[in-house]
Amino acid sequence: MSGPFAAPGTHAEIEEGLVLMPRFGADGLIAAIVVDDASGDVVMVAWMNEEALAKTIETGEGWYWSRSRKELWHKGATSGHVQTVTEMRVDCDQDAILIRVVTAGTGANCHTGRKGCFYRRVPIGQKPASELALEPTGDDPLFDPKAVYGG
Amino acid sequence: MSGPFAAPGTHAEIEEGLVLMPRFGADGLIAAIVVDDASGDVVMVAWMNEEALAKTIETGEGWYWSRSRKELWHKGATSGHVQTVTEMRVDCDQDAILIRVVTAGTGANCHTGRKGCFYRRVPIGQKPASELALEPTGDDPLFDPKAVYGG
Repeated sequence: MSGPFAAPGTHAEIEEGLVLMPRFGADGLIAAIVVDDASGDVVMVAWMNEEALAKTIETGEGWYWSRSRKELWHKGATSGHVQTVTEMRVDCDQDAILIRVVTAGTGANCHTGRKGCFYRRVPIGQKPASELALEPTGDDPLFDPKAVYGG
Repeated sequence: MSGPFAAPGTHAEIEEGLVLMPRFGADGLIAAIVVDDASGDVVMVAWMNEEALAKTIETGEGWYWSRSRKELWHKGATSGHVQTVTEMRVDCDQDAILIRVVTAGTGANCHTGRKGCFYRRVPIGQKPASELALEPTGDDPLFDPKAVYGG
């Protein structure tokens, strides 16, 4: 790997060491879990390639790899919802990143216009059937995605 | 897919519908973000295959697919740290699951013995170098993993 990060080392270095050695998957991506700094709620899960992770660290703003558009993605570039990163952590096996963010504009992080992406509950304690009904949490859109992204 | 879940439908059904239609990746897995119910902190990121997701929904306990051991994994079966799920949510494009859990025993969720897996901070606001130093958060192990899992 020719990027800015250390290559993954031994099991002990990865888990207990104090050098960042991110373990990108076979697709070149690492999972990024995004928490709203004010509420502490998980608001989105996205993916970073090496460049996105490097840009997030360097600029302190959320950059991702869009798997659907197959391109580097500066969150908020279109919608104005730039995310300022207040803290970044890495997990035990260094294959997941956790960031806390303050989001500009309406504060929405989801492309559906909502604060976060987890706006439906899955009921627990029943044998799942093919029509398992979700329950809306009441998180309503803060902006109209059609007006921002087009219809 | 012959499992218990609805197959992914249209874009609108996936994003705004009220039927669970989980979108497993090419590897058959979906990301599961685990939050400690009491603190609200993200404590781990794991993976579920169809069977693990179905078992988690049915039993209300955390089941995963271990990518390293390549086997279904009832969290806590070895260590006693069974996770009781208090809430499950699914994200906008139904390719990530968010659960809140109450964890038995010491309350540790990480195999290193710690409460959570995110025990190291990544400093923000500098151009990343190959030896980017991590900062311990002070989350110390709650149990000795060698005593539980073997050395």
